[in-house]
Amino acid sequence: MPEQTRNHTQPQDGDALAAIDLGSNSFHMVLAQRTLGQLRVVDRLRETVRLADGLDDNGGLSAEAQQRALECLARFGQRLRGVPRLSVRALATNTVRQLRDPRAFLGPAEAALGHPIEVVSGREEARLIYLGVAHAQPPKPGHLRLVIDIGGGSTEFIIGRGFEPIERESVQAGCIASTRRFFPGGKLSKKEWQAALTEITAELQHFAGRYRALGWQEALGSSGTHKSIGEICAAMKLTKGAITAEALPRVREALLRAGRIDDIELPGLSAERRPIIAGGILVLEAAFQALGLEKLLVSKAAMREGILYDMLGRGGADDPRDASVQALMARYGIDERQAARVEATAARMFAQVAQAWHLDDDDARMLGWAARLHELGLAIAHSGYHTHGAYVLEHSDIAGFSRQEQQVLAALVRTHRRRVPKRAFDTLPDRLLLPTRRKAALLRLAVLLHRSHDDDPIPTLALEAEDDRLRLRLNREWLRSRPLLRADLLGEPEDMAGLGIRFDPGLDC
Amino acid sequence: MPEQTRNHTQPQDGDALAAIDLGSNSFHMVLAQRTLGQLRVVDRLRETVRLADGLDDNGGLSAEAQQRALECLARFGQRLRGVPRLSVRALATNTVRQLRDPRAFLGPAEAALGHPIEVVSGREEARLIYLGVAHAQPPKPGHLRLVIDIGGGSTEFIIGRGFEPIERESVQAGCIASTRRFFPGGKLSKKEWQAALTEITAELQHFAGRYRALGWQEALGSSGTHKSIGEICAAMKLTKGAITAEALPRVREALLRAGRIDDIELPGLSAERRPIIAGGILVLEAAFQALGLEKLLVSKAAMREGILYDMLGRGGADDPRDASVQALMARYGIDERQAARVEATAARMFAQVAQAWHLDDDDARMLGWAARLHELGLAIAHSGYHTHGAYVLEHSDIAGFSRQEQQVLAALVRTHRRRVPKRAFDTLPDRLLLPTRRKAALLRLAVLLHRSHDDDPIPTLALEAEDDRLRLRLNREWLRSRPLLRADLLGEPEDMAGLGIRFDPGLDC
Repeated sequence: MPEQTRNHTQPQDGDALAAIDLGSNSFHMVLAQRTLGQLRVVDRLRETVRLADGLDDNGGLSAEAQQRALECLARFGQRLRGVPRLSVRALATNTVRQLRDPRAFLGPAEAALGHPIEVVSGREEARLIYLGVAHAQPPKPGHLRLVIDIGGGSTEFIIGRGFEPIERESVQAGCIASTRRFFPGGKLSKKEWQAALTEITAELQHFAGRYRALGWQEALGSSGTHKSIGEICAAMKLTKGAITAEALPRVREALLRAGRIDDIELPGLSAERRPIIAGGILVLEAAFQALGLEKLLVSKAAMREGILYDMLGRGGADDPRDASVQALMARYGIDERQAARVEATAARMFAQVAQAWHLDDDDARMLGWAARLHELGLAIAHSGYHTHGAYVLEHSDIAGFSRQEQQVLAALVRTHRRRVPKRAFDTLPDRLLLPTRRKAALLRLAVLLHRSHDDDPIPTLALEAEDDRLRLRLNREWLRSRPLLRADLLGEPEDMAGLGIRFDPGLDC
Repeated sequence: MPEQTRNHTQPQDGDALAAIDLGSNSFHMVLAQRTLGQLRVVDRLRETVRLADGLDDNGGLSAEAQQRALECLARFGQRLRGVPRLSVRALATNTVRQLRDPRAFLGPAEAALGHPIEVVSGREEARLIYLGVAHAQPPKPGHLRLVIDIGGGSTEFIIGRGFEPIERESVQAGCIASTRRFFPGGKLSKKEWQAALTEITAELQHFAGRYRALGWQEALGSSGTHKSIGEICAAMKLTKGAITAEALPRVREALLRAGRIDDIELPGLSAERRPIIAGGILVLEAAFQALGLEKLLVSKAAMREGILYDMLGRGGADDPRDASVQALMARYGIDERQAARVEATAARMFAQVAQAWHLDDDDARMLGWAARLHELGLAIAHSGYHTHGAYVLEHSDIAGFSRQEQQVLAALVRTHRRRVPKRAFDTLPDRLLLPTRRKAALLRLAVLLHRSHDDDPIPTLALEAEDDRLRLRLNREWLRSRPLLRADLLGEPEDMAGLGIRFDPGLDC
C-alpha cells in the first residue's frame, strides 16, 4: 500500500506540487512550486505508454501494456522521492475507466508510484482540462471558449468562460481507440473514412446543437493530437499555429494517399505519432463538421496543469467540491438544518477519535460532505432512502470529485442506517477500506443522535477509539429520559459489527 | 387476463364509478355515480379478509388467505357485472406490497374480479386517504388537518390543507402486523406493552418533529381501528365521537387487564375486531405520544372514497399525474423543448398505429409522460442516462401513479435508446407487456428522429403497424441529406427485435 503523502491542507507558498496524468496514450508528470499564490513549473516528464493499446474488448489489460505503465510509474516515483513536503495527485482516465477490474491495475500502479492513484470520470477530466487550458490563456472577460482534447481513448469538449467550465462532454472516441476501431487492418480508404466519419459525427450530435446555440469566441485544441496536426499543417505550409476548416481536408487527403497506416509519410509527423494519427485526424474532422468549426488554436496546456490548479483550491475556502455538494443539496431539497446538526456532531466525535484512528483532514472533509448529503435519497423515496442516495452519489457526475471519492461518499451514505450490507465497501481500494469504515461508524452515531430532527442539544458526548473498538459515553441523566435513543443504541453493536467495529454504547448503567 | 373496462377519458355525468380497496384487514368496494360533477355513492360492500394474517416472513401468502381474497373478489366482481359504462379502479396496499411475488397473487385476483388491480406505494395510499377524508369534511379554508389511518399492515400520517396533502408518511406498523409482531403468543402485559410502545414511537421519530413544527388545527382518524376505539371510548362513557389523550390510556388499561387477547372484553368492541384491537390501540398510543396529540376525531371516509375522487380528475385537465410529471421535470432540469418535440412526434406516430395496435387513451397519456421524462437521467450523468432515469422513476414516490404505472414509465425510459435488456419488462403484469413494448417502439423512434435536438421539422412520417410488424416511411429526399439518421435507422431493426417487434425502417430506396 503506498505511503499517504498528500498534504491534508491547502498548499502554502514554497510547497511543491506534483500532478500525474495516466492517459491512454502517454503518461505525464509535472512538478511545480507554489510561489506568491501562483504556480511555477519546475519539471516535466512524459512517456509514451500506449495503455489503450493493451485494452481488449472484455476490459482486460495486456501484460505488456501493464509492464510499460508500471515501469514508467516507477521512474516517476523515483523523481518524486527527492521532493520535500509534497502534494501529489495522480489521476487515471479513459483506459482505466474501461477496465473490468481497475483495482488489479491500480494496486501495483500505486505501489510503483508510491502514491494513491484516483480515477476520474470523463466529465471531471473535461473540467480539469478546461482549468489547465484557461490558466494558460490571456484573460478575456466575458469571452466564451471552446476547448477540445483528443485523448487516446476519449475526447472531451468543454465550453467555458474565464476559469469556469459551462458545458462539459466526454465522448468515447480517442485517437488510439478510433484507429483500432475503424482501421483494424491498418488499411486506409476514402469509403471507410466516410463511414467512420458518419459514426463519430452521430455520437457528437447529442450535444452539438446545444454547443452551437451557446457559441464561442475562440476554439482551442489541447492534446498531443492537436499539437501534431498543427505541426503537419505548418510543415505543409497550410497554416501557422492553428488548424482550419480549409487545411484539415488537405491533411486528410494526404493521409489517405498513403493507403496504409504503416506507409503514412506526412511532413512534420513524428514516427511515434504515426500509428495513431489517423484516428486523431478522423475525430477532429468529425468535430469540425458537427460543431461547424472554422479555426482551432493549439494550446500547450492540458489536464496535468488543470490538476495542479485544482490542487491549489482543494482543502481551502474555494474547494470546488464544496460548491458541488451545495448544488446537490439544492437540487435534492436536503433539509439544511438537519444536515448541519449531523455534520456538527460528526465533527465533534471526529475530533475525539481522529488521532487514535489515524484519520486526517481529508477524512474530516469527506465525513462532513457525507453528513450534508446523507438524506439526499429522501427526494426519491422515504423507503430505503439511504440506498437511493448512494445510487445517486455513485453515478452522478460531481465536479471536483474523483470516482473513488464518490464511491467513499456513496458507501458512507449507504451504511448510515439499518444493516450494513456485506458488499457495501467492495468498490473501494484496500487503502480506503479501514478509514471509510471508521468514518461510517461516526456518521451512523451522529445520525442516530439526531434522529428526532430537533435542536435538542447533546450535553456530554465522549467517544473513545482504539483499533477496532469504539466506546460511547453519554450523560446518564440525559439518556435516562430518552428511551428511544437508548433502544437505538442497544441495536448498534450488532450493526456496527458489519463495519468490523466492536461498539460499546455505554448502556451498562 | 381480465377485461379492460376502464373508461379512457374523464368520467362524465351519469357515469358509474367503482373503487375497490384490497386492504390488509378488509376489502372494500364503493360504487358511485357522477352527478353534476359530484359523486353520489350508490352502494358499499365490505368483507373482512385478513389478508395480512396469511403473510409469512418470507413474503409468502397462505393458501387460506389467498382463497378468502379470491372469493371476496369474485363476489365484488359479480356486483360490478350489472353496472353499465363503468370506470373501475382497484388498488392493493401494504400486504400486497410485502409479497415476494405479487404477480402470483394479482393474476388470479384480477381474474376473479374481472378488472385490473394495481398496487400503490404507502405514500400514494396516504395521498388517496387524505383525498377521501378531506372531501368528507366541511371546508375550512387555510386550516391544517392531520389525518391518521391505521391499516392492517401499515399506518399513514398526512398533513394537508383543503384537498391538498402537504406531508405524507407511511409507517410499517398496522393493527394486524403489530398484534402479530408484539403479542405473538396472545399474551398481554404492561412490560411488553411498554417495550412495543418504545419501538413504534421510535419509528415515528423521523417525521414527528417535522409534523409538530408544521402543526394542525384538527386531527382525524379514518380507519376501522379508529372507529372501533371511538366506539369503545363512547361505551366506556369517556368521550363522544372522539379519542382523547385522557381516554386512550384508560382503554389500554382495560385492555391489559384481560391478560390475553382471547379474553379481551371491552364495551363496544365487536367480536370481529377483537383479535386485532391490541395492535391498533398500541399504534394509536404511539402516535398520540410522538405527535403530542390531545384529541382525534373519527372520520368515516377512507382510501376508497379518495380513489373515487381521484378518478374524477384522472384523464382530465386536472389529472394529478400531470402535476407530478411537471414537478419531476423541474427537479431534474429536463430540457422542456426537447421533451416537447419528442412528445409531439410520439403522439403523431401514436395516432397512426393506435387502432392497429389496440392502444387506448391511457396508453397515449403514458407515452406522453415517458416522452416528457425520457431525459431525466441526464441530471445524474450522461453515460447510461436511460438507466439512471429508469432507476429514479421506478423508486420515486410519484403522486397519482400506481406502482405498475411507474414501472411502465421506468421501462419506457430504460429502453428508449441502446440495446433493450432481456429483463426490462420483467416487473410488469402480463396484461401490460404487449402495449408497453409497443409504446417503447414509438418512443425509440421519436427520440431517434429528434436526436439532433433542434427544430428541424420532419416532413413526411408514415408509420404502419400490424401485429408484431412496424414499418416506417420518411420523405426520401429529406432522408438522403441526413446520413446520421439513416445510420441510426439501420441499427433499429436489431434493437427493436428486443421488443419483439419486426421493424422495417424503409431504407430500401
